Amino acid sequence: MKPYSEMSKEELEAQKAELTKQFEQAKEKGLKLDMSRGKPEPAQLDMGMGLLDVLTSSSDMKCMEGIDTRNYGLMDGITEAKHLMADVMSVPAENVIVYGNSSLAIMYDTISRSVTHGVMGSTPWCKLDQVKFLCPVPGYDRHFAITQHFGIEMIPIPMTADGPDMDLVEKYVSEDESVKGIWCVPKYSNPSGVSYSDETVRRFAALKPAAKDFRIYWDNAYAVHHLYEDKRDEILEILSECEKAGNPDMVFEFCSTSKITFSGAGMAAMASSAANLADTKKTLTLQTIGYDKVNQLRHARYFKNLEGMLAHMKKHANIIRPKFEAVLAVLERELGGLGIGEWTKPLGGYFISFNAMEGCAKAIVAKCKEAGVVLTGAGATYPYGKDPKDSNIRIAPTFPTAQEMAQATDLFVLCVKLVSVEKLLQTA
Amino acid sequence: MKPYSEMSKEELEAQKAELTKQFEQAKEKGLKLDMSRGKPEPAQLDMGMGLLDVLTSSSDMKCMEGIDTRNYGLMDGITEAKHLMADVMSVPAENVIVYGNSSLAIMYDTISRSVTHGVMGSTPWCKLDQVKFLCPVPGYDRHFAITQHFGIEMIPIPMTADGPDMDLVEKYVSEDESVKGIWCVPKYSNPSGVSYSDETVRRFAALKPAAKDFRIYWDNAYAVHHLYEDKRDEILEILSECEKAGNPDMVFEFCSTSKITFSGAGMAAMASSAANLADTKKTLTLQTIGYDKVNQLRHARYFKNLEGMLAHMKKHANIIRPKFEAVLAVLERELGGLGIGEWTKPLGGYFISFNAMEGCAKAIVAKCKEAGVVLTGAGATYPYGKDPKDSNIRIAPTFPTAQEMAQATDLFVLCVKLVSVEKLLQTA
Repeated sequence: MKPYSEMSKEELEAQKAELTKQFEQAKEKGLKLDMSRGKPEPAQLDMGMGLLDVLTSSSDMKCMEGIDTRNYGLMDGITEAKHLMADVMSVPAENVIVYGNSSLAIMYDTISRSVTHGVMGSTPWCKLDQVKFLCPVPGYDRHFAITQHFGIEMIPIPMTADGPDMDLVEKYVSEDESVKGIWCVPKYSNPSGVSYSDETVRRFAALKPAAKDFRIYWDNAYAVHHLYEDKRDEILEILSECEKAGNPDMVFEFCSTSKITFSGAGMAAMASSAANLADTKKTLTLQTIGYDKVNQLRHARYFKNLEGMLAHMKKHANIIRPKFEAVLAVLERELGGLGIGEWTKPLGGYFISFNAMEGCAKAIVAKCKEAGVVLTGAGATYPYGKDPKDSNIRIAPTFPTAQEMAQATDLFVLCVKLVSVEKLLQTA
Repeated sequence: MKPYSEMSKEELEAQKAELTKQFEQAKEKGLKLDMSRGKPEPAQLDMGMGLLDVLTSSSDMKCMEGIDTRNYGLMDGITEAKHLMADVMSVPAENVIVYGNSSLAIMYDTISRSVTHGVMGSTPWCKLDQVKFLCPVPGYDRHFAITQHFGIEMIPIPMTADGPDMDLVEKYVSEDESVKGIWCVPKYSNPSGVSYSDETVRRFAALKPAAKDFRIYWDNAYAVHHLYEDKRDEILEILSECEKAGNPDMVFEFCSTSKITFSGAGMAAMASSAANLADTKKTLTLQTIGYDKVNQLRHARYFKNLEGMLAHMKKHANIIRPKFEAVLAVLERELGGLGIGEWTKPLGGYFISFNAMEGCAKAIVAKCKEAGVVLTGAGATYPYGKDPKDSNIRIAPTFPTAQEMAQATDLFVLCVKLVSVEKLLQTA
């Protein structure tokens, strides 16, 4: 089929009639599918059940420090868990604090602490007239929600195939003292799947911030979440790059096992410089006597080391890769060459990012919903939920089965076509 | 032996010589005992090991909502965990949010949220010139540390045998709009072991706060922590009392299983009015996708109900009661009638509170340390670490064995005598 933009008004009208008929038929199927959130499917969770068997007797419960993990103490995590999470992030274990089950909670906490107490002695952000964050777009809605909650002004930064537009990042960071941070998902980005190039990481490390308390919020959520064994993205390790560049304190890095073991009951960690960690611990020690060390021990014993975890993640990949491929196959077959949409083909992570014709995303998501397929809300991938082009849609293929994903994507492409035809007819 | 205050200078000198000799001998024993923190002992933790066996297969993992606890979701906790924690606090389950492993973290969070976002629409505390909290003394050092961290001015309120001095509480709360809260441990208080009388609870419920965002921070940490079967304190349920008194939104109540199952890996909960919970959840939903639901399910399945938990706590009591009794026996035998110290005889909780002669607490704690027995730092039970009378010492008898506790208390009473004699000699 030829590109929609080359169709005459009559051809478009004919298309519309045919697509509308197909859509009505699709509605009758009564689909009920959810592609809205990056959730593991049950089979992935089943793979982690061994986790619940590693600690059974009282004699199992001491960690490397010789401390009973069931009792109070060790606020910053047990050594073996630090090592495991450090290896996930490719940093030394002494740069790691292991927390509870949610890296999002660590990020919230890190921002909240900066608002009330500043960063390493800086003025608390609540005392400043203006605080801004750079937000690579499309990005992760929950990052944006945290910054918005604290009244932090968000500046969208376009993503390229190599990561955020670094010319813009450098300009804002070096010129504006009210810019205190940037949200990054450096590997298999949410939602684009893009991994930052070495040059991008080096340019991050070499930033010359106007604000002393500027930090890069490096959410390494998909560090070990490869879809393929032979095609993988790897990124430069940011902490050591920053140190080399003379900016040792510029990064807070986050990760978790939420999409490795259990989304509801994993463990999360933060890596940063000794100075940042010392500053963090000053508050942490008031906040809790310690996180769940039994769960930390459980994870460390279960995986033993990074190799154990990577072997586990290969099995995950075998489950979710066919779903990604099912979506991509339908997109290619149905939309290839039509000029009404572009999409990413990620090598890892949890999402496919789809860009519709301008002004079509909301209508597409609404149409899908009308026929029983729930997508992430259009705009969610932008600060304040506002995609200025109304173009980006995040597809989360992991939770439904591959067959369901194919069905859902069949409907999705139908809606993309129908909305695009209607859009073109408005100006034809 | 007659009261020290009735001794002549010569008698005191003779006492001092004898006690100094005993102290030097005690030092030679090279004791290494810690009575500083309220930690369960290993045998208590061993009793909870069944907790790790209740969830073993994939088919065990759904909670009452039919949701897989291993996956994301259910931010405010699973229904069965809400019911269990609600029963601990004697409140309806719909008034409960179940969190992660630390009630201290909930309290920190609740204060932090009030600082940045206010309480149910009130001005955020960080925008106010002055915020004050009432602090019943002696009290829990970690409460005071949180308020101090946020620059909140702490006003000490003396404890009586019925709870805080309510005349003072009523005066401050009704007259001063900058008074935003009061820290309470209403049952088996930390450290005095006092439980609030029904009249005290009713007077709390009937407060007429000048500040709309005044809240009672009701840390019900020892709700089921009785030492005896036949002698128990029970307190009035504060939420319903407040509602009856026309103050439905005046309380945040906290509890946890830290001293029921595992101190490092239990679950914690907050109870409050529907309006407070709704306000809390507005932030919570940005902060996390959910707490550890697997651990919540584990706890709910293990105990089944409050009766199961109370049966479990009877076994705990059998372990720690002899330790309390060992301490009390030594105190009574060695210090009874000397007029140099008073102490509480709690029916539950984790502490014995000792009041030395004025100006002696720091010296006693230092002397104990010199001979190898670590106590909670003198002053820790007061805001800013400053006990104006330098009198109160918190004794935590649970972690060491009963024999160790007797040994440690032998040393303690020796130090009390020695320091008291020295004190009396200064003015003799």
